[in-house]
Amino acid sequence: MSSGHAAARPVLASSVDAWHDEADVIVVGYGGAGACAAIEAARGGARTLVLERASGGGGTTAMSAGHLYLGGGTRVQKACGYEDSAENLLRYLNFSADDPDPEKFRRYAEGSVAHFDWLVSLGVPFRDSIHEGRTSMQQSDECLLWSGNEKSWPHREVATPAPRGHKVAAEGEGGPLLFARLHEAALAAGARVQYDTRALTLAVDASGAVCGVIARRDGETRALRARRGVVLCTGGFAMNPEMFARHVPRLAGRVTPIGSPYDDGSGLRMGMGARGAALHMADYHITLPFYPPAGLTFGILVNAQGQRFVGEDAYHGRIGEEASLQPGGVVYLIADERCFGRPEIDGFEIAAVEESIADLESALELPAGMLQHTVEFYNRGAREGRDPLFRKQAAWLRPLEQGPFAALDCSLGRAPYMAFTLGGLWTRPTGEVLTEDGEEIPGLYAAGRASCGIARSASGYASGTCIGDATFFGRLAGGAAARRTDTDVSSTSPGGDP
Amino acid sequence: MSSGHAAARPVLASSVDAWHDEADVIVVGYGGAGACAAIEAARGGARTLVLERASGGGGTTAMSAGHLYLGGGTRVQKACGYEDSAENLLRYLNFSADDPDPEKFRRYAEGSVAHFDWLVSLGVPFRDSIHEGRTSMQQSDECLLWSGNEKSWPHREVATPAPRGHKVAAEGEGGPLLFARLHEAALAAGARVQYDTRALTLAVDASGAVCGVIARRDGETRALRARRGVVLCTGGFAMNPEMFARHVPRLAGRVTPIGSPYDDGSGLRMGMGARGAALHMADYHITLPFYPPAGLTFGILVNAQGQRFVGEDAYHGRIGEEASLQPGGVVYLIADERCFGRPEIDGFEIAAVEESIADLESALELPAGMLQHTVEFYNRGAREGRDPLFRKQAAWLRPLEQGPFAALDCSLGRAPYMAFTLGGLWTRPTGEVLTEDGEEIPGLYAAGRASCGIARSASGYASGTCIGDATFFGRLAGGAAARRTDTDVSSTSPGGDP
Repeated sequence: MSSGHAAARPVLASSVDAWHDEADVIVVGYGGAGACAAIEAARGGARTLVLERASGGGGTTAMSAGHLYLGGGTRVQKACGYEDSAENLLRYLNFSADDPDPEKFRRYAEGSVAHFDWLVSLGVPFRDSIHEGRTSMQQSDECLLWSGNEKSWPHREVATPAPRGHKVAAEGEGGPLLFARLHEAALAAGARVQYDTRALTLAVDASGAVCGVIARRDGETRALRARRGVVLCTGGFAMNPEMFARHVPRLAGRVTPIGSPYDDGSGLRMGMGARGAALHMADYHITLPFYPPAGLTFGILVNAQGQRFVGEDAYHGRIGEEASLQPGGVVYLIADERCFGRPEIDGFEIAAVEESIADLESALELPAGMLQHTVEFYNRGAREGRDPLFRKQAAWLRPLEQGPFAALDCSLGRAPYMAFTLGGLWTRPTGEVLTEDGEEIPGLYAAGRASCGIARSASGYASGTCIGDATFFGRLAGGAAARRTDTDVSSTSPGGDP
Repeated sequence: MSSGHAAARPVLASSVDAWHDEADVIVVGYGGAGACAAIEAARGGARTLVLERASGGGGTTAMSAGHLYLGGGTRVQKACGYEDSAENLLRYLNFSADDPDPEKFRRYAEGSVAHFDWLVSLGVPFRDSIHEGRTSMQQSDECLLWSGNEKSWPHREVATPAPRGHKVAAEGEGGPLLFARLHEAALAAGARVQYDTRALTLAVDASGAVCGVIARRDGETRALRARRGVVLCTGGFAMNPEMFARHVPRLAGRVTPIGSPYDDGSGLRMGMGARGAALHMADYHITLPFYPPAGLTFGILVNAQGQRFVGEDAYHGRIGEEASLQPGGVVYLIADERCFGRPEIDGFEIAAVEESIADLESALELPAGMLQHTVEFYNRGAREGRDPLFRKQAAWLRPLEQGPFAALDCSLGRAPYMAFTLGGLWTRPTGEVLTEDGEEIPGLYAAGRASCGIARSASGYASGTCIGDATFFGRLAGGAAARRTDTDVSSTSPGGDP
């Protein structure tokens, strides 16, 4: 066994001279998914070892605002007077995905309230309150947020709208507090955590089952045996420019990747090297964070043809996706004097300001007459509280009539779009990684953005889905790995089918 | 070694009791790519064995009209008076892809004329003539066809338009004749072809190099040794409903798959099982074959908002893609009495016929006033020979003013959309299959739709790209495999790194 292996290529256990350490379950990556996998593996009686590349835990979860997309009637939803049910949540989730994995989605919807309660049992605080503002960056300690497309059309016709973004009670970012509680629980359950430890590749036995991890720590390559399983919780690949360009070429170079610097797809590549299939590799969450200020929602988004293409009251992720797909990526937000405000996020340029829509149309070099018609048509409906094109909520309808009028440049490649990846290993709800033939790879599990979860489409994404999904399925994967029967590496015969 | 292996899982050569047959190069799949790989492998001095599941060769190539997308100044292009160059072709190809593989695209553009001449040298006939009709089903024996987006905007501003669809000279489908000539050349070069032989999986040595194929023939499982390499030419996966739904969920159940019944992704899965990375798995060619009759190109395509979204003179593949992406997939083709005609392909329904555009708008339940404005705006430009929105060619601009007016239903899920897959193994131009880390898998090659080639985006597809690409890169892969040094399976030590 040499130390120079690329991640995708596992080593054969029989070539390992000696195991430097061993555990029942090895968790690779210590963010939200990894911590929850470690808690449940350790609570399930497995000797659990967590490997983390960074000098501390947290991953992308600890960098986040700390929202979890949960519903079905949580304590906070009830306290705030919102009705929701597992069926209603499932309808919403199913509608938001091109291909909802039936079993994964069902378990998430049915287990959502219990997952909330589990987090509370670990000491994660949630206030019984709602933040009513329309924001992409909730910074107060209020809990509930309309963090997706629940109230916008057509989603509101599919499932009864309910707010489901649950923010951990903290001023500013709630992710650090969330992770701190998970970390305490993992340690209390007996998990060992090794930082500054980079997993290089997986070890497999002659049958192809995963039985360990080769890792690097303090300049030394160490073979770590996993008697029951390895759980990959290494995050997505937004921070790997080559992988991002290979799998999401349309956005490469045009968006700012979001995440931890270690979201480089290492675990995903390890899993693929062990024959794991990857799903939705071209999918992503993309945001056009033009709000706050919420008032810009009164404006309209138009493309290079001067046409609207989406309800401006949709979630910023859905708007980002639709906008990025417009011809040439050219999009402007048209605002009047009453609704205009500077986006709080830097990087938006004002393309033009004019006294009339006709002059704005000329200044933007839009086809003569198109923007004028679009605004006239929109204003006519808005005066009646209707949006015949995209059924924007009446609360955000107001004629654009008070000049001057401004055009905010929302074009792909110019506006500050941000994105992260949603593609990952194909897994069962309980984390077992599958090959392209749908066969389990014994001993290999994945959760969080190293796997393909609930979040699998840009137009259906809602804030909190990734951390909701990562913590929920991280638990299931850790529990499943702990329940697996020990393997005995020494008894496998070299020369069998790999 | 058992016979029950799923395709994705290779067997270790050391577990093979005896090799039933051997060759230097084994080609799996005998369509356009496989035949060209076999020709060049055999001509390169390799003992070449071709395995084909069907009882005869041809694959999807022999089922096709027989177009190859070639350019740069072929004999036929010159004879018909069209200027083209390798640089011009490359500009067109690069623009048509989100992520042109630089080396692959360059070789294809620079080698295109020589590839045409090579086909001629095998006796493949091409007439020095052009078919000027706008059609998705060229059935005459004329050669050149404007088979992509060359003349439509914005492509025409990127590269000087030239027709590049080269149809094999045959009345009706040219694919059978093309394949017949390839087959003769393969046999003449000394390739052996075994039909009714289904490759089950790959054989790999202890180092992970591919050294054979396990196949099933006459009810018997046979181990076939490949001393230099295996070339996977097994086609795409449009005919595998599970794989299609997994990787192209947006279209699953809404399009008719096109191809050979054996386009089930078997080779792709074998390659992935040997750790090959797959690219563009969510990409496809989709067609909305509303023409012929060409006259419908005078009509306009509108979405559920009554807005146009694409130049109607674009290639049917680009139109199919843009149409399928409209909100709710709802699209109508609006025609007047002068340009209306029934599509030659069955399955299109007429959604409404009315004496006025206003009545048509009501009948289609489009937002009141939108279609009327769209038609008025379009007509105003058309009278001046201009299309300010999508720069449709003047030759296809004519006001829609002579009632009655008809709406042809082009909605996804209702109109007869057809599609095939473009995702495949990541390869070098010379066919070597790469892992997600970009490492070569020794002994494994792929070409045609089992690989990711020149054709990699729905909006950029042009008829003839797949057969052009399959035959071109099939040749390179066969040649490269033949040049590889023989491996000696017996000398590899079991227990090394897989």
